[in-house]
Amino acid sequence: MKARVLVRPKAGILDPQGAAVARALPALGFDGVSEVRVGRLIELEVADPSRLPEMCERLLANPLIEDYEVLLERDGG
Amino acid sequence: MKARVLVRPKAGILDPQGAAVARALPALGFDGVSEVRVGRLIELEVADPSRLPEMCERLLANPLIEDYEVLLERDGG
Repeated sequence: MKARVLVRPKAGILDPQGAAVARALPALGFDGVSEVRVGRLIELEVADPSRLPEMCERLLANPLIEDYEVLLERDGG
Repeated sequence: MKARVLVRPKAGILDPQGAAVARALPALGFDGVSEVRVGRLIELEVADPSRLPEMCERLLANPLIEDYEVLLERDGG
């Protein structure tokens, strides 16, 4: 089964990449942008999706400073 | 409006992070995982979502080697 894992910095944790993007966009003429957070996207094909939270805790995310969200894509959707 | 931008390496482009994850998971006891790709997740609040593709082309993604996907979250969904 295809799965997507979204990993983002926890609320309150500094996000220097997000801060850089938030500063750069207005400099390029894109106004009205705020609350930018930059995280990671992991896409994978997995035989047993029930193990994904454990994979996140142990490798894909750093649970001390990051939140993760697992999305499953059923029937190629 | 809240938006999510998913950025991933184009098909055929080397993805060393994805390769590292694909090698590390079985070593941790997680079998049955394949086709791992690692990309970026950008979440932001944007006044004019119609400008998001242009933001991706100019700053958020590298269109030579990366694909992007824009997802809008309406009504806090």
